[in-house]
Amino acid sequence: MKIGGVHYRTIWPSEDGGAAVCVIDQTKLPHEFNTVWLETLDEAARAISTMQVRGAPLIGVTAAYGLCLALTKNASDEGLDGACATLAATRPTAVNLRWALGQMRAALQPLPPAERAAAAYAKAAQMADEDAETCRLIGQHGQKTIADIAARKGTRVNILTHCNAGWLACVDWGTALSPIYHAHNAGLPVHVWVDETRPRNQGAALTAFELGAHGVPHTIIADNAGGHLMQHGQVDLCIVGCDRMTAMGDAANKIGTYLKALAAKDNGVPFYVALPESTIDWTISDGVREIPIEERSPGEVTHMTGLAENGEVLTVQVTAPGSHAANPAFDVTPARLVTGVMTERGIAPASREGLLQLFPERADHARA
Amino acid sequence: MKIGGVHYRTIWPSEDGGAAVCVIDQTKLPHEFNTVWLETLDEAARAISTMQVRGAPLIGVTAAYGLCLALTKNASDEGLDGACATLAATRPTAVNLRWALGQMRAALQPLPPAERAAAAYAKAAQMADEDAETCRLIGQHGQKTIADIAARKGTRVNILTHCNAGWLACVDWGTALSPIYHAHNAGLPVHVWVDETRPRNQGAALTAFELGAHGVPHTIIADNAGGHLMQHGQVDLCIVGCDRMTAMGDAANKIGTYLKALAAKDNGVPFYVALPESTIDWTISDGVREIPIEERSPGEVTHMTGLAENGEVLTVQVTAPGSHAANPAFDVTPARLVTGVMTERGIAPASREGLLQLFPERADHARA
Repeated sequence: MKIGGVHYRTIWPSEDGGAAVCVIDQTKLPHEFNTVWLETLDEAARAISTMQVRGAPLIGVTAAYGLCLALTKNASDEGLDGACATLAATRPTAVNLRWALGQMRAALQPLPPAERAAAAYAKAAQMADEDAETCRLIGQHGQKTIADIAARKGTRVNILTHCNAGWLACVDWGTALSPIYHAHNAGLPVHVWVDETRPRNQGAALTAFELGAHGVPHTIIADNAGGHLMQHGQVDLCIVGCDRMTAMGDAANKIGTYLKALAAKDNGVPFYVALPESTIDWTISDGVREIPIEERSPGEVTHMTGLAENGEVLTVQVTAPGSHAANPAFDVTPARLVTGVMTERGIAPASREGLLQLFPERADHARA
Repeated sequence: MKIGGVHYRTIWPSEDGGAAVCVIDQTKLPHEFNTVWLETLDEAARAISTMQVRGAPLIGVTAAYGLCLALTKNASDEGLDGACATLAATRPTAVNLRWALGQMRAALQPLPPAERAAAAYAKAAQMADEDAETCRLIGQHGQKTIADIAARKGTRVNILTHCNAGWLACVDWGTALSPIYHAHNAGLPVHVWVDETRPRNQGAALTAFELGAHGVPHTIIADNAGGHLMQHGQVDLCIVGCDRMTAMGDAANKIGTYLKALAAKDNGVPFYVALPESTIDWTISDGVREIPIEERSPGEVTHMTGLAENGEVLTVQVTAPGSHAANPAFDVTPARLVTGVMTERGIAPASREGLLQLFPERADHARA
């Protein structure tokens, strides 16, 4: 997507074919736009652990490139093993990180050490391209839903989203935001209600930043406001991302998603979940009972970071001193509240039957 | 209620019978507890306009005492008229402020000027006492609901509340928090989930402060978290306040209340609205259509105020630069989502019939 008219991905190798990889430093967003060159395994590992890069797909691709940087210096079996271990330890719970490292290792281990670095760069580039293509396809399919509403309505389409499921979390396009970018690029009149998404504010900070940078009209709202807007006909559809979907279509996503899905149902507003097939966990069925929810630091609730008048980025305590906070990071939206699932193969109902229509090869594994 | 073991109201006259009125400076909460003596009409007016005092009942009583301070210096007809005009202009949309001034004026105008100041102090004290008594009765009735759950459950009762409907908004006890204080004082094991309540954070700042100061166990959560907690059986009931209730039981309250009511309904959690009869607007019936919703400054969404590490209270921008924000301040919870209404006369269903059971004298005026 674009920032100030220039096309960016979230990660790209140097043009001389190696030696360094560039990423956008997301810890500085939205107040500063900085890119950082990663030249060593340790720099790549630090970029992941300090969340200069975040979002499951981007973490995976960054780990893949981190392995490339390591193999340039030491392509022995020990070098490969050590680099994989270093990178896997950066974010202990990131499933995609381990998946990406597993893919890389399987491709590289059989090769003679002298061929590993070049093969690693090729494989990492392929992973980045595949992620971008998957997200592009999600957007191409999802765009039709927006176009249908635009045709019926004749005026601007108001889309509500929660958290950041945009290109900053991926390599390009994003998941929930990809249909919106496609619609906007096609000249459809879209406007996005951006949920702030407390406590980490990824909506107000990242989604608003990337929509603004690409030129998509949008308005930030408190997470509390969406129900009221839906009651008054100001939301035409909701599109959110997903961290894990069960084989029955229950969707775990950033905390608060469930509340918006309830309001959408109560007001007849279509509610879509956008995700690649890789996000579907075919081994589970009941999301509320089977998906463990990460409890994160209370400090994310009690403190907030922002730009002070003097230009410094500061953290302030916003809660009563001495009061404790709890911070469950995700919730589960039951499939009954989801109008449809937007994937790289098309849109289907959020149900076992719907998902298997799109991914029939999973029929043997999908839990009922 | 108590702060550090000492009983406070939010406003009280000096013990020598006049000349000054003391209030808690709520602009300094939760980071500092300060009281301020108001000695003149202008100081009282400023306390209201700068929100040193806030909450409809407290604003009304502060205006009443402001009139006392004015009449001590000038009890002529012009003095009375001028002081009423000055006080009425402090918060142009506060219904309760105008109601309180109307009551005072009606009582004082017929008196000879020499008797007005003393009569004003007596009337203001009566208004304060009546508000405290109304809130005490709401709590006495609501406590039974909590006691029933405690008896059935045998362990601590988890109550979710939104925004601040506590004693800081009233003279004492509060509305939604009054049943909780009564239950806690009676030795029932209660724990309160305090919704942060973006964008103004009255939950994280004021509700958490007053519960903590009185010793009531509580935990602050992001507004997004309540649905997840209800899905997992961690909320036994919800009690919220109300800014305006229709004759049919629709409840306008701080933005986001509607989302919690939806989640409560979806999970079979009882959802109560606590309010004095004076909050019921018998002239309207359909809340979503008839209650205009105040749109407040976008700055409340884009900026947050808190305590920096150096001890200063600072404001920081938390949103992407250049992105706009919208800030609807209230939403309407339809009566169908409300389990019951807790009032000074008891608890009733949120319906015309239910409300008129408690307040039969309103039958002639209540819209259907």
